This record gives sequence, C-alpha cells and structure tokens, in this order.
Amino acid sequence: MHYELIVQLTKTLRQLDTWLEIAAAHAQAKSFDPKLYLGFRLAPDQRPLSFQVQTASDTLKLGAARLAGKDAPSHPDSEQTVEELRARVRSVLEYVAGFTAKDFEGAATRAITQPRWEGKFMTGSDYLLEHVVPNFYFHASHTYAILRHNGVNLGKRDYLGALSLRNPA
Amino acid sequence: MHYELIVQLTKTLRQLDTWLEIAAAHAQAKSFDPKLYLGFRLAPDQRPLSFQVQTASDTLKLGAARLAGKDAPSHPDSEQTVEELRARVRSVLEYVAGFTAKDFEGAATRAITQPRWEGKFMTGSDYLLEHVVPNFYFHASHTYAILRHNGVNLGKRDYLGALSLRNPA
Repeated sequence: MHYELIVQLTKTLRQLDTWLEIAAAHAQAKSFDPKLYLGFRLAPDQRPLSFQVQTASDTLKLGAARLAGKDAPSHPDSEQTVEELRARVRSVLEYVAGFTAKDFEGAATRAITQPRWEGKFMTGSDYLLEHVVPNFYFHASHTYAILRHNGVNLGKRDYLGALSLRNPA
Repeated sequence: MHYELIVQLTKTLRQLDTWLEIAAAHAQAKSFDPKLYLGFRLAPDQRPLSFQVQTASDTLKLGAARLAGKDAPSHPDSEQTVEELRARVRSVLEYVAGFTAKDFEGAATRAITQPRWEGKFMTGSDYLLEHVVPNFYFHASHTYAILRHNGVNLGKRDYLGALSLRNPA
C-alpha cells in the first residue's frame, strides 16, 4: 500500500506541475506577470499559492523519506517565480522517482515522529493514511482552487491525469 | 489497503460534517441565511458547495459499494439547506460504517466500470488509487476552501481530525 500511494501522489504532483504551466501561459496570454500567482490566496488568513505548492511537494517528499527511513533533501522555500516553483516540484518528482517498493518494506510499523508531536509518534501506516494523503491532497487541491479562482482554465482531466482504463478481454 | 483507505475517507467525511456545522453556526452569528452557502463557488464555471458535498459523499459511497461488489443506495441531489446536506453526509457515513475488511477481499482485482468509460474498466486497486482517493479529496478540499473563502473559521485540525499519535514505549 505504501509504495502504491506514493506512486499515486507522485502522479498528482506531476499534474500539479502542468497546472502551473497552464497558469503561466494564461498569464502570458492576458499580459500579467505570472509572479502574481504566488501571492494569491482564497482567504486573508489562508496561505498563498506558493505555500500550497511548497507544502504539497514537502508532504510527498517527507512522506516518502520518513516511511522509507531516509533523510530527505531540504528545500529553502525561497521560490519567487512560477518557474522556480516548477523547478522545486520537478526536483521532488525526481527524488521520489528513485524509490522502489522495496524501500517501503518496513514502513507499516515504522515509528514516525515530528518535532511538533512532542515526543509522540505515529506508525507508518497511520502516518501515511491520516497525515500524508489528506495533507497532500489538501494542498494540491488548494493550488488547483486558487488557480481556478483566478481564471486559469483547468478541468477534472488536468486534476486526475490519465486513468488506467482497460479494454474488456 | 482498500478497507483502510475507505476508513480514512470516512474519517474525513465525518470532519466535513463538522465543517458544515461550524458554517451554520457562523451564519447564525452573522445573521445570514445558511442556505446561501449551498450556492457559493470559487469560480463562475466551478460547481457550488452543494455539489462539492454531494460529490464527496457519492465518491465515498460509490467507491465502497463498487469495490465490495454491492449496490449503493441512491441520493437524489435535492438538498436545499445545510441541514439537508448534513443529513445526506450522515446517511453515507452510516452506510459505509456497515462495511468490514472482509467486504473488500476481492477488491484489488475486481473490474469496476462506469457508463462514461464506454465499456472500459479499471481494476479495483487502480480505481481506488487513481479515481476514488483524489476525487474524494478534491471535493472535500473544495468544500473546505469555499467555506474558508466565505469567512468560516476552520483550521487544519478541523480538516484532519484527531491523529493516532502514540506514546513512546
């Protein structure tokens, strides 16, 4: 399960990269600076698009690393342009592409912790299901929602990507 | 995996019910009709809150039913108030609470199809990972985002619910 879910989150992050590409093209067509997207948000006390993209990326990166018992590369949250955000996303895509099913063999029962949990821990399976999956999709969906709210033409196919549809035997 | 993911989606749908409850209390405090929420949307060509709640509910209900090879109860999408939306959510929560791990024993390889797939099918595992999970979280996150955009005070704890944190041995 752990590997399969990481693969699915990777697929969605790859789609997110295409949303940013479409957004940049939209900005060019409408003659506004695509940098503006980074500060857009849905509520004054919600985080802006840059944070949503950074956190979707980090949730996948740290999720894969922690479940596999590895140290993740760090990203300094210093992106100033859509191109820099896309470079970060692609760097995470490249990093997680290096994982195989074997890396997650002990993941289900691995003890995962974070400083904010004050010494408590979650099992790998609980962490993946209760934390990584919902948080990842929260920030990916908010990225999508902020872009749609600001006029970028995205649809469900852009969100989901291609489905593994099969022909009847 | 199938049962565990259905349990996690059920947890998030239970949280969604609390968001609607908080939204209704916010409307009362601000003296506006909570029915207004049902028509709120993030973009003119995106679906409103009522659809987001209906579709999050349906994605879980149909996902569980199809993976288990059962027929799901139907809901007519006729809700006119927050209370009616919450009743629908709770009806789905009650329905999926009836499933056990045993119901999903053949789910991984079960052939799942929908009219719009024109005769093609997905395996149960592909359907769950590529379709149910991302669609469910899309519509749950959009429900949350529409409420936040309209001033409802929700935070990450409302989104995630309680985490299974454990004390060190």
